[in-house]
Amino acid sequence: MTTSTFTVTGMTCQHCVGAVREEVGQIPGVTEVDVDLPTGTVTVISETPVDTEDMRARVDEAGYELAS
Amino acid sequence: MTTSTFTVTGMTCQHCVGAVREEVGQIPGVTEVDVDLPTGTVTVISETPVDTEDMRARVDEAGYELAS
Repeated sequence: MTTSTFTVTGMTCQHCVGAVREEVGQIPGVTEVDVDLPTGTVTVISETPVDTEDMRARVDEAGYELAS
Repeated sequence: MTTSTFTVTGMTCQHCVGAVREEVGQIPGVTEVDVDLPTGTVTVISETPVDTEDMRARVDEAGYELAS
């Protein structure tokens, strides 16, 4: 299992957190997504390392932005 | 038809707007709910005047607060 940490900008409330968790959770191999709203930190636990561009696409799909 | 205007605090994003619209739209007789996110102004069009306490209860149910 791999733990990856990302920063997502634009989340303002628990609805936003839910939207990001739902989208990121659909990446194949992802087993857990934790979001810290105040900092925008998204921690992803997955069977294999998460591809940053896959992550960026999912975050974008949810309506937010992956920082860096 | 009656148009009533309220101010709701705590909405931060379009998900919040959707949650308020959905709840307020369930008040009997309400035919349209418009939300201006930046100002928190919620405009309700209904067959008969909307009871403020009904409105307060729905907004609370959605997770937000009716101002005044």
